[in-house]
Amino acid sequence: MMHGKNLVDGQWSATGKSVFKTFNPGMNDANEWIFYEATPEEIGQAVMAASEAFETYKHSSGAQRSAFLEAIAEELEVLRQEIVHAYCLESGLPEGRANGELGRTINQLLLFANLVKEGSWVEASIDTALPERSPVPKPDIRKMKVPLGPVVVFGASNFPLAFSTAGGDTASALAAGCPVIVKSHPLHAGTGELVATAIKKAMEKEGIPSGVFANLNSKDHRVGETLVQHPGIKAVGFTGSFSGGSALQNLARERKEPIPVFAEMGSVNPMILLPTALKNKGEFWADQIAASINLGAGQFCTNPGILIATEGEALDNFCELLKNASVQQPAQCMLHPDIYKNFKNGFRRLLDKTSVSLAAEQESASQPNYGNLTLASVQAKDLLEDEELMEEVFGPFSILVRCKNNTERDEIIKRLKGQLTISILGEADELDTEKNLVAIAREKAGRLVINGVPTGVEVCTSMHHGGPWPATTDSRFTSVGTGAIHRWVRPVAFQNFPESILPDALKSNNPLGILRTVNGTPTKDPVHS
Amino acid sequence: MMHGKNLVDGQWSATGKSVFKTFNPGMNDANEWIFYEATPEEIGQAVMAASEAFETYKHSSGAQRSAFLEAIAEELEVLRQEIVHAYCLESGLPEGRANGELGRTINQLLLFANLVKEGSWVEASIDTALPERSPVPKPDIRKMKVPLGPVVVFGASNFPLAFSTAGGDTASALAAGCPVIVKSHPLHAGTGELVATAIKKAMEKEGIPSGVFANLNSKDHRVGETLVQHPGIKAVGFTGSFSGGSALQNLARERKEPIPVFAEMGSVNPMILLPTALKNKGEFWADQIAASINLGAGQFCTNPGILIATEGEALDNFCELLKNASVQQPAQCMLHPDIYKNFKNGFRRLLDKTSVSLAAEQESASQPNYGNLTLASVQAKDLLEDEELMEEVFGPFSILVRCKNNTERDEIIKRLKGQLTISILGEADELDTEKNLVAIAREKAGRLVINGVPTGVEVCTSMHHGGPWPATTDSRFTSVGTGAIHRWVRPVAFQNFPESILPDALKSNNPLGILRTVNGTPTKDPVHS
Repeated sequence: MMHGKNLVDGQWSATGKSVFKTFNPGMNDANEWIFYEATPEEIGQAVMAASEAFETYKHSSGAQRSAFLEAIAEELEVLRQEIVHAYCLESGLPEGRANGELGRTINQLLLFANLVKEGSWVEASIDTALPERSPVPKPDIRKMKVPLGPVVVFGASNFPLAFSTAGGDTASALAAGCPVIVKSHPLHAGTGELVATAIKKAMEKEGIPSGVFANLNSKDHRVGETLVQHPGIKAVGFTGSFSGGSALQNLARERKEPIPVFAEMGSVNPMILLPTALKNKGEFWADQIAASINLGAGQFCTNPGILIATEGEALDNFCELLKNASVQQPAQCMLHPDIYKNFKNGFRRLLDKTSVSLAAEQESASQPNYGNLTLASVQAKDLLEDEELMEEVFGPFSILVRCKNNTERDEIIKRLKGQLTISILGEADELDTEKNLVAIAREKAGRLVINGVPTGVEVCTSMHHGGPWPATTDSRFTSVGTGAIHRWVRPVAFQNFPESILPDALKSNNPLGILRTVNGTPTKDPVHS
Repeated sequence: MMHGKNLVDGQWSATGKSVFKTFNPGMNDANEWIFYEATPEEIGQAVMAASEAFETYKHSSGAQRSAFLEAIAEELEVLRQEIVHAYCLESGLPEGRANGELGRTINQLLLFANLVKEGSWVEASIDTALPERSPVPKPDIRKMKVPLGPVVVFGASNFPLAFSTAGGDTASALAAGCPVIVKSHPLHAGTGELVATAIKKAMEKEGIPSGVFANLNSKDHRVGETLVQHPGIKAVGFTGSFSGGSALQNLARERKEPIPVFAEMGSVNPMILLPTALKNKGEFWADQIAASINLGAGQFCTNPGILIATEGEALDNFCELLKNASVQQPAQCMLHPDIYKNFKNGFRRLLDKTSVSLAAEQESASQPNYGNLTLASVQAKDLLEDEELMEEVFGPFSILVRCKNNTERDEIIKRLKGQLTISILGEADELDTEKNLVAIAREKAGRLVINGVPTGVEVCTSMHHGGPWPATTDSRFTSVGTGAIHRWVRPVAFQNFPESILPDALKSNNPLGILRTVNGTPTKDPVHS
């Protein structure tokens, strides 16, 4: 059933000679399917089709886009069995995770479907004219957000569904009115092809222009680089490593017309452990933290890679509890032998330092590519002298930083780079005395968690999944939740426009019934001008 | 009265040896005041003070910031006479303009004062917990916008008040909770000093930490470069040339922690003239356009530098009307001999091309530095072959592009770079048949104007003063209107926070009484969690 072709302008295409296979890390062997690397011609054709499609798709109504997103969700459900099968063969992740992630992917599509069906997300604002104003009349000015144009989405290795072909980036960009070209992730090209099949069916069913979605296979960097440099592309979405994200951003900046790259580049998600919490609930938190470090074999951007605590009896006892909880966590198959190798090399490089000691190590599994939870420990003063100790090790690894006192702890937090999340575990009384700690942490992260682990990113209006550099390329935008749509739009003001050529969202009688800001006040009422 | 010192951490400072004077273009002679170039030590001290002040200022309430902005407005009014006097001596602009621009500056401060007093601008959003949700409980997540940190604002040559020391960038950043360091523009350092005096008084009156505002003099580029590269600076606001803005952006990108640069870099603000409008209202539009080109001696970022029309009898007649209207416009003093020289050289370079002809030229004034309105004319096909003809000539200059037909006209618009504005003059019937023209123009500009000139940027909620590259460095943000505050903030999500450490804007009982999004619905109601 898997044909390995690229989806270009609504057609499956395989004009190139270069092919590649995906890999089954559980079996430690290549999968049988063959995928055709997209050619420069296919890339050019996909971008041209996207640019042409944008001319009509940008004018599509919220109802039309909503129906399209719902249709994608439906078609994914139809293909659930095939998708879950390919997902497991290509990722080594268990079926439960595959089904859960597909559910999340479908929910994200429906979330954006509802958002654009309701329609107020365009942030329409109207200031009516004051023709009699002195010294100069005030003109009628109306503003709303409009789509940027064709977007390139890079599939993420660690989320074959929720942050790949029909994931959050794609769903939000399609909702915004932008055509999407997916640079499929080479680790799960088969899963991507099946999801692209679902999107193709939804496009045909809903009469969406064929250039609105494309899926391009590639194993090397050339396809992605060509896409980001193509003048027809207006924005980029990426989830992955710092080196990958910053390389794409550099390419985008060197263009004649620079474009925004929204790259989520990972984080060590520090957890700050306050003593009373460790004393009162040590066992609970040890279990929670060990499970969070080991979740998905640690292959999450919100994996807690650094634990910060002040020395004392509470910490000593907690270390024992955490060690016990850690070794009880199951070893799990990682996404690919290279990722497994990088994980092993990454934590070994740290443990080779004289300042770092091993705090806990789960027994290695006998199966290949299985990552075993590993904990290291370091004194705060050594961490302050060696920035490498703050770097992410992708996998089930975390480093405990022992601080002599709270001053040293706060110094560590001030020295952190930008993070997706910072978590603080503390009892009510001690939290009230640590308002300054919360204030310091706020400068370093996009999400602060009290008494919780960072893994588990709720998809909702109030979520912010982003953070100061280098966690992301732009701290002002989120890649999870409804806010993600604002990455793909810009405001345009329409001055003195007659009703007949105003977009519906800005027409005086408010035909869409959306919430708008009229002369500074939010209202759904029509405008009498 | 003018002392020429830098305002650093609440004190006037003049530790450097390098000094400079401003210039009176009307008298064609230097002004008598002497200004002290800020030293590296003063720069470092200003940034350190700003970083320290941020720790408290970021927690200041909307009421406090509002009182501060209102106090600045009051103190500016107190110094009106001195400010207007210095403004005229340093810019060559007439007193009426100075008074008008001061009024606009005061109104901008009050606009942001009202915005933060009301408080809903932080876009607070609350999703309440669902502890019983299966398979995983939903946590309580709340989100709001928080300030980025110390901001550097570059004064603009052409707006000594409204886009300089206490202009829109400063007002919006202070409103957002960010300390501001102004790199004063060397052409109007005296005006800047007086405005800084007003801000200093307002700070003292309102008990604002002394590091919240600084004003640094500089004639060469070093002060600005040092500021943009300083790790304590978190964002930059700039209004000026493409070369200046893009140089600052490059510096900001090369930092260890890259920061956003919001540079408004000018535009040629194309006006598209449709034939029936030219036929029916030729005289009216000729007067309007000539006055818009000549407004402020053409020294506006929204100056209409390119007029696009399809050939025919209507255009031929209109050209005569525009020529007559143009030569009747008064010559005006430009900001500086260098700006006058660049204007002259700029339009002469274009007129030297064989493809370009002179369409109208106002008589040269006998006074030095007076710019005379100059109109050129070119065939569309020649413009398509020579991108230089689309470049901005800063001053009272515009080039009329004659298109063979509407296809050629649309081709010109598609080839335009990003613009702040595009205007279309057309009668009702012809606009209804030109929906595609409006759609093409929308991709190229941040503001579309129907039947109006681009000059005159209304300060209001619905204004968008920004546009696709290279008009600005970030098309998603405006530098005019209430939306300008969003350049200086980023969202932070607060997960599972106890009430006692939540920011007021996110507390369940809504103590600020602001509009919030609660479980997806806008409301001012308290949250029952």
